[in-house]
Amino acid sequence: MKIAICQMNVTEGKELNIKTAERMLREAASNGADMAVLPEMFNCPYDNKYFPEYAESYPGTTTDFLSSIASDLGIYIVGGSIPEKDGESIYNTSYIFGRKGELLGRHRKIHLFDIDVKGKITFKESDVLGRGEDITVFETEFGNVGVAICYDMRFPELIRLMAVEGGAKVVVIPAAFNMTTGPAHWELTARARALDNQVYFVAASPARSMESSYTAYGHSMVTTPWGEVAAEADEKECILYSQIDTDFVDKVRSELPLLAHRRTDLYAIHDKKTGGEY
Amino acid sequence: MKIAICQMNVTEGKELNIKTAERMLREAASNGADMAVLPEMFNCPYDNKYFPEYAESYPGTTTDFLSSIASDLGIYIVGGSIPEKDGESIYNTSYIFGRKGELLGRHRKIHLFDIDVKGKITFKESDVLGRGEDITVFETEFGNVGVAICYDMRFPELIRLMAVEGGAKVVVIPAAFNMTTGPAHWELTARARALDNQVYFVAASPARSMESSYTAYGHSMVTTPWGEVAAEADEKECILYSQIDTDFVDKVRSELPLLAHRRTDLYAIHDKKTGGEY
Repeated sequence: MKIAICQMNVTEGKELNIKTAERMLREAASNGADMAVLPEMFNCPYDNKYFPEYAESYPGTTTDFLSSIASDLGIYIVGGSIPEKDGESIYNTSYIFGRKGELLGRHRKIHLFDIDVKGKITFKESDVLGRGEDITVFETEFGNVGVAICYDMRFPELIRLMAVEGGAKVVVIPAAFNMTTGPAHWELTARARALDNQVYFVAASPARSMESSYTAYGHSMVTTPWGEVAAEADEKECILYSQIDTDFVDKVRSELPLLAHRRTDLYAIHDKKTGGEY
Repeated sequence: MKIAICQMNVTEGKELNIKTAERMLREAASNGADMAVLPEMFNCPYDNKYFPEYAESYPGTTTDFLSSIASDLGIYIVGGSIPEKDGESIYNTSYIFGRKGELLGRHRKIHLFDIDVKGKITFKESDVLGRGEDITVFETEFGNVGVAICYDMRFPELIRLMAVEGGAKVVVIPAAFNMTTGPAHWELTARARALDNQVYFVAASPARSMESSYTAYGHSMVTTPWGEVAAEADEKECILYSQIDTDFVDKVRSELPLLAHRRTDLYAIHDKKTGGEY
């Protein structure tokens, strides 16, 4: 599977952001991508004050666009995330479309980004956003793919459940780390989740814009089941391509059988929705 | 707390290894260490054929030595690991002694190292060794300290339980990664476990010896709750010192509250021994 991360500039103006996404998705498809990934809040500046204004119910302008371009191009699209309106609530939500434009999944960010690193970065998503309640894995002809959003990637239990309960061999994370947490933790976490769960880990950031209130780190990245960086962008707008080889997932899982060696007789992760223990 | 990792040369001859350990422990204490850590299998070459020959029951020559030198020097000793004989079984076991020489804990390696990376490294501990069944955390005046051994560190669930069930702020891992897994995964895993669980992570390797059947990577390391490398050895015999600041653990846990942000309403790690869910 050829994957393309569209590390786009996100700015004010939903229409403009959708236009940018369209241009990059068309270029990705013309270069043979099977799946294209957009960043977190790709249609809206990453700022609490914009989320209510840009939020839309499903189906809406942005999801109609994603569905129709997926069908037009015949590729999978993990549509980054957008502010989703559902009744009185707003969620940070990723919509996933298949090659025929069909909705394959929807992930509402489970772990909200409430952080206060003194003198560096303060953000409180929970002032505005609601919490997702579901783990998201969808099927493709290449194998199962998990989707979560940004801060979700910091929680090993979630990625573990995607791999061992959901059968994911690829995990895709639309994200927007910042200039404090990005240099410190972005590559480390992307590599460690890939290694521990022996999956490809696809982390998609917006391009860096020094004009925004929240400065994204960029450096979209694909890491391998052996914990290596397969591809990495710099901070500028670009499309990052990488090959996903699920046979390599199987090879690593056979040679270094971390998933099989878990001592589930001593500990297990309890998925409280399904009741399963893994 | 000042911690000292004794990255010693391990060779054939139990008496010789104990002498080396004694020399390094005395030097560590004379330099003000509160706690000293020895590497995995510090009294025995890391090779299945030696484990039965070097194995001893508790109390035995090696544990008597560790207890008496801990008391003599008035420091904590995480006694790396040794082959432990218990009836017909042999375990890869770490004995932990307090400042008065009292036994504070014993960890039998839970996850056995059975790996077959084609053309690189093949090892099968389970041919000779039994599996531990318990998670090990002990108390000190500086806070709680978890202990596990080498391959155990690859399992996020174990380290997570040490932090959230056992209250560990420091995790100590006597280990012996090799020349394949060391360069690929040692620093990555040490940094990620520290960051994810917001603990200091203390990973102690033997020095590298090209004469052994199993070539240890060296590079003993201390990583911080922010995911940084605080101190790192090269591959040669040395003592690596580092300060452990548990106030910094509290600061990071407050500013970036990863442990508090876990969605234990959606998932939890079930400790099957205690029945607790975390």
